[in-house]
Amino acid sequence: MLQSKLFTKTRKEGPSDEVSKNAELLVRGGFIHKEMAGVYSYLPLGLRVIENIKSIIRDELNKVGSQEMIMTALQGKEIWEKTDRWSDEVVDNWFRTSLKNDTELGLAFTHEEPITNIMKEFVSSYRDLPFYAYQFQTKFRNELRAKSGLLRGREFLMKDLYSFSKNKEEHDEFYEAMKGVYKNIFERIGIGENTYLTMSNGAPFSKYSFEFQTLTDAGEDTIMYDEKKKLAINKADYAEEIFADFGFKKEDFNFKEGVAGEVGDIYSLGTKYSKALGLTYKDENGKDHPVYMGSYGIGIPRVMGTVVEIFSDDKGIIWPESVAPFKVHLIELSSDDTNVSTQAMELYNELERKGVEVLYDDRSEVSAGEKFADADLIGIPYRIVISNRSLKGGGAELKKRNESDSNIVSIEDAVKMLSE
Amino acid sequence: MLQSKLFTKTRKEGPSDEVSKNAELLVRGGFIHKEMAGVYSYLPLGLRVIENIKSIIRDELNKVGSQEMIMTALQGKEIWEKTDRWSDEVVDNWFRTSLKNDTELGLAFTHEEPITNIMKEFVSSYRDLPFYAYQFQTKFRNELRAKSGLLRGREFLMKDLYSFSKNKEEHDEFYEAMKGVYKNIFERIGIGENTYLTMSNGAPFSKYSFEFQTLTDAGEDTIMYDEKKKLAINKADYAEEIFADFGFKKEDFNFKEGVAGEVGDIYSLGTKYSKALGLTYKDENGKDHPVYMGSYGIGIPRVMGTVVEIFSDDKGIIWPESVAPFKVHLIELSSDDTNVSTQAMELYNELERKGVEVLYDDRSEVSAGEKFADADLIGIPYRIVISNRSLKGGGAELKKRNESDSNIVSIEDAVKMLSE
Repeated sequence: MLQSKLFTKTRKEGPSDEVSKNAELLVRGGFIHKEMAGVYSYLPLGLRVIENIKSIIRDELNKVGSQEMIMTALQGKEIWEKTDRWSDEVVDNWFRTSLKNDTELGLAFTHEEPITNIMKEFVSSYRDLPFYAYQFQTKFRNELRAKSGLLRGREFLMKDLYSFSKNKEEHDEFYEAMKGVYKNIFERIGIGENTYLTMSNGAPFSKYSFEFQTLTDAGEDTIMYDEKKKLAINKADYAEEIFADFGFKKEDFNFKEGVAGEVGDIYSLGTKYSKALGLTYKDENGKDHPVYMGSYGIGIPRVMGTVVEIFSDDKGIIWPESVAPFKVHLIELSSDDTNVSTQAMELYNELERKGVEVLYDDRSEVSAGEKFADADLIGIPYRIVISNRSLKGGGAELKKRNESDSNIVSIEDAVKMLSE
Repeated sequence: MLQSKLFTKTRKEGPSDEVSKNAELLVRGGFIHKEMAGVYSYLPLGLRVIENIKSIIRDELNKVGSQEMIMTALQGKEIWEKTDRWSDEVVDNWFRTSLKNDTELGLAFTHEEPITNIMKEFVSSYRDLPFYAYQFQTKFRNELRAKSGLLRGREFLMKDLYSFSKNKEEHDEFYEAMKGVYKNIFERIGIGENTYLTMSNGAPFSKYSFEFQTLTDAGEDTIMYDEKKKLAINKADYAEEIFADFGFKKEDFNFKEGVAGEVGDIYSLGTKYSKALGLTYKDENGKDHPVYMGSYGIGIPRVMGTVVEIFSDDKGIIWPESVAPFKVHLIELSSDDTNVSTQAMELYNELERKGVEVLYDDRSEVSAGEKFADADLIGIPYRIVISNRSLKGGGAELKKRNESDSNIVSIEDAVKMLSE
């Protein structure tokens, strides 16, 4: 798209009340707007990143046969009382509201209860199982504090998947598969190397579970991680007996300590929700059994914020190509030379024709220095400059955001390289 | 997709408390789940329809240079107090909530205030205007009653676009263009013929505005409409002086009376919000002016519900191809004949390879009668049956949902016709 048409602009300073690096850079780059602590609007550049992350997740979930749906924020209390998650004493982050007739409602912070309730419509026989359903849906969590930018939201988009299986064996098979699915997702997003499958004790749903922790100073957790085995454990759980419960031996690992933030979790729910809400199936002999469930979450803004925390320098963001708002930032330095503008516009059209996503900085009345500073802040992976100098040198000046040196390449070669 | 894997099932009866035809058929077909009055979850088939409607709208809005973003549900009161839309006396459908520290919040029923506030970051000069920003975002409206299924929601997805122009002339040009954009959208969705640009008096934002009304008995309005001129007026506004204000002459029209439901609206906001919130720009001479705004809404579930109200018969829904959850419903009647299954699976694979979206009813243990009844209820545009009989007749039995007679066509011809 033409940058002269993009309604956002970069700014030199983040909001004065913003202490997190991810939100500061994203606000300055024009990706997000802070409505209040933990509540952000996504502007065109930011929404493109969100959609790229969603596409990767959707693709990986569909590959294992999951089905997409979407549930509601507004929740009546009946089903949540059955699982004892309605009262503020048990769940301390409900946003409460009510209908005009004073019926109490809450805004969903998760969806185990409503999805279990929905599935009572559709599950009756062993033939209906297993299956997997997920959504990208806005969660509301009334956090006391929200100072970590996108890493802890009061209103945020979450991917939550729920699995419905006949028994523990069938569940375990999918649960194990999901470890691989999550690994693929985080690798494709670009944080695979920094992300660890992490043993966790004291989860909300079962004694033990796994989460995915990404090494970043902005994280709220401390983990012990083994770089080679790609496995970690929360530091608080770093004990012989917990290793034994997970079926591991501590001495087989070479652990380092690091600060990390959770980017996903996979929980075995067992039959807790199906029993409480009456989700059962009949086996081959007509005998009733509760459905065996799992739940699997990824906070989309949290992933986006973590990417920014990891991939940035003092000049701005350095997006991995897979989630970048555009692949190419084309910068024209025309200073009233119409040939430069013409060549830049031709390159833009050619790249668009080849399906390459390009942000084309066609702005006049903006200095070269400002354009370069904006490009570094916004962090698109490839920067290609067309100027009088570059044309005299034989084409365009190409540079990756994470490299300091640029090369002059012919325009044909640039098109070839960037549309690969 | 394989229907044996789809987790939803059809049902004979709608919810006992559901009085609207659209919600009854959609619940019975497994498209939606009713959480409470006016609050519906979208199951896989329903979400596919929603996404198809969104794609058409997105495509038409992007064509005129609009930029997609997404704002938040949670709203602080400050900006709404400035426009006098915070108090319950003025706006009677707020859902209220609060932070842990008792800060009052509301759930957005619309977004004029937050978007005007956001744009203060980005608009300073006449060079920044005009531009257009839109979102697909969940609106919350605390309706006293919600008995019309998807036509009146308490929580529903809305497309809302906002235009920012330098002055009335520039605004009027875009406003006129949006009439055409909306016309294209409703035509592509399949309700163009039934939908009328409708003059309306007493809108919330200005004395006069236009809305788009679709003729359907489920609607809440009565309009006077001219079939040839494709223009209508709310019956309550059917008066000489209002025609004159719109610049029309009553005698130039041939009006009929009809019941209709609103599917979209386009409002000129003028400078009401920009003045109240301080969104101004400097002209060429450095003089400040308030930005001239417009807002343009389409309720996505309302459009979906309207389609169902219009396109259905006593057997079920009849989706227009452009928004149908799948293009083709392939039904295998195998009764243990493996050749039938093999041929059906081959056809399924061939259509998928060609990019045709197919729901393949591969279910065993379901009778032919049930499969046909399900197909009629779900309402996919093309039904193709493979059975022993059809294979003996030379291929597959092809029928459109809105036709009663089927034809035997060769499998090659079927592929050709359906992948066009």
